[in-house]
Amino acid sequence: MSDNPLIDCLQYANWSPSIFEQMRTGGVHGIHVTIAYHETFRETVLNIEQWNRWFEMYPELIFMGRSGDDVRKAQRENRTAIFFGFQNPSAIEDDIGLIEICHTLGARFMQLSYNNQSFLATGCYETEDPGITRFGKQAIAEMNRVGMVIDMSHSAERSTLEAIDMSARPIAITHANPHWWHPALRNKSDEVIKALTQRGGMLGFSLYPHHLNNGTDCTLDDFCQMIHQAAERYGVEHLGIGSDLCQNQPDSVVTWMRNGRWSKEMDYGEGSASNAGFPPQPDWFTDNRHFGNIRDGLTKAGFSNVDNAAIMGGNWLRFYDESFGPAT
Amino acid sequence: MSDNPLIDCLQYANWSPSIFEQMRTGGVHGIHVTIAYHETFRETVLNIEQWNRWFEMYPELIFMGRSGDDVRKAQRENRTAIFFGFQNPSAIEDDIGLIEICHTLGARFMQLSYNNQSFLATGCYETEDPGITRFGKQAIAEMNRVGMVIDMSHSAERSTLEAIDMSARPIAITHANPHWWHPALRNKSDEVIKALTQRGGMLGFSLYPHHLNNGTDCTLDDFCQMIHQAAERYGVEHLGIGSDLCQNQPDSVVTWMRNGRWSKEMDYGEGSASNAGFPPQPDWFTDNRHFGNIRDGLTKAGFSNVDNAAIMGGNWLRFYDESFGPAT
Repeated sequence: MSDNPLIDCLQYANWSPSIFEQMRTGGVHGIHVTIAYHETFRETVLNIEQWNRWFEMYPELIFMGRSGDDVRKAQRENRTAIFFGFQNPSAIEDDIGLIEICHTLGARFMQLSYNNQSFLATGCYETEDPGITRFGKQAIAEMNRVGMVIDMSHSAERSTLEAIDMSARPIAITHANPHWWHPALRNKSDEVIKALTQRGGMLGFSLYPHHLNNGTDCTLDDFCQMIHQAAERYGVEHLGIGSDLCQNQPDSVVTWMRNGRWSKEMDYGEGSASNAGFPPQPDWFTDNRHFGNIRDGLTKAGFSNVDNAAIMGGNWLRFYDESFGPAT
Repeated sequence: MSDNPLIDCLQYANWSPSIFEQMRTGGVHGIHVTIAYHETFRETVLNIEQWNRWFEMYPELIFMGRSGDDVRKAQRENRTAIFFGFQNPSAIEDDIGLIEICHTLGARFMQLSYNNQSFLATGCYETEDPGITRFGKQAIAEMNRVGMVIDMSHSAERSTLEAIDMSARPIAITHANPHWWHPALRNKSDEVIKALTQRGGMLGFSLYPHHLNNGTDCTLDDFCQMIHQAAERYGVEHLGIGSDLCQNQPDSVVTWMRNGRWSKEMDYGEGSASNAGFPPQPDWFTDNRHFGNIRDGLTKAGFSNVDNAAIMGGNWLRFYDESFGPAT
């Protein structure tokens, strides 16, 4: 299946040339990478500057992706196209004009909220979810206009349903699993996934252990059977991978993800005081060289080659083609 | 000559739809507009956001220019391509990574200094000119790499000669006249213009009254005869227009240009306490509808149609083609 595009729609590794090499070994053509958790605009730009340096230093391995065609270019040239995204709208601060600025700088996904309430929407850890805010409605329209995808991976139920409904273009949940498979707070209700996919949206299956049935011990079979069930419920054309791979990150990074600058008390997010750091990955998916395992697992779970290729990248590529340009 | 491109390589008007309409009436296909004098990066981004709004609101009149081909597109579509530039490197602060960021956001020209000493080079109002700084050398190489033009319009003599010499790609003085015609501090020495043009660089003739022989009373004939003399000395292929038109600006803007946030005492720049504001333009060039007067004047001064077209835009278009892309 090397002629088919391979896309992972969420990673936040501790990037290095050796990880870029692993992307090539694994034949990954496109990756949506997180460039901001709680960063301000200026801090986000510093993160983009770091990526620009990597693009300059390792052009034989990676380049900035801006469109679906850049995935095809990566396939042709045996490289990986890197697509930027924010887990949190902190990068646009209180300024709607920064959405187009960030899009021009390469950002293609923005979560409207990350666990907490943002200016735009509610996060999945809040007890109250008042839905999409005044600024949130404006931001959704602006993201639709310029071609930045609304991502509700860490958002709360009502906000997510409202975003699906308000957005004129299909949205994404780039990295989460169905709640019916594993009832983690971050996994999504059947109602949300139905609404998402019925409006043309995409779900990326996560391999972050806290999102997996039996965590680190989750089996490849279990994971792929869940995908098979999801395909029956929602349609295979709306499914892809968003591994949430956080390779080689120190525990301080998970603390930053969970606590940003907003809390003086430690928040453990999906972990706990006794299990505060990054949980180990299942042994069948520890880095970018392991996508072949998932391909094999999907085949074993009963997917045809065509559907397998769609889940492993074809569906995201179609979505990228339709989502990253200005509204027509 | 309507088939020929018309380019003005420096304006800083108090932009409005009526000025955009005047650009169309005047048949101007490309304009290099100033988006920062003393602004920080974040403030510069706010200025770009304002332009993005104008591009969204008036797409039938203007759009963001990124390459020489965008001038050709403007010719075909009867619009004006707007090219961004900074008069001062304040927008990149102390961060070389911001050069590529600003280029991605559309910036195509950056002055290494504006009247005063900057982190990069010396301005023309300083008494001492130690030449290009350590950061300046790095910035020149980075600007060469990404395709941002070094503009030395407001820089001092030694810094300018060094920049011409150090840059691997031709540079520009977008808006100034020869000192031998009118000995203003901002006008350029014969040595500088010779060095600039011998290395493939471009000089844009200014219509700012303080740069003109007899100021506001300068005649069109005098201005065009000066251009004719310059063509004989330096070669017509290195000459263009950079009008420095500051249409409809209140005097507070000239105060900002001259004083930024650096001075508690009033600096009058090229003016004086008794003549502090914007001087009136010569009556033959008050706005974008008057380029035809300069065309007629150049013909009267003895230029062929071919040379006339080169000065009015063809030379800048060649320079844009060669300068705005990454180094090859």
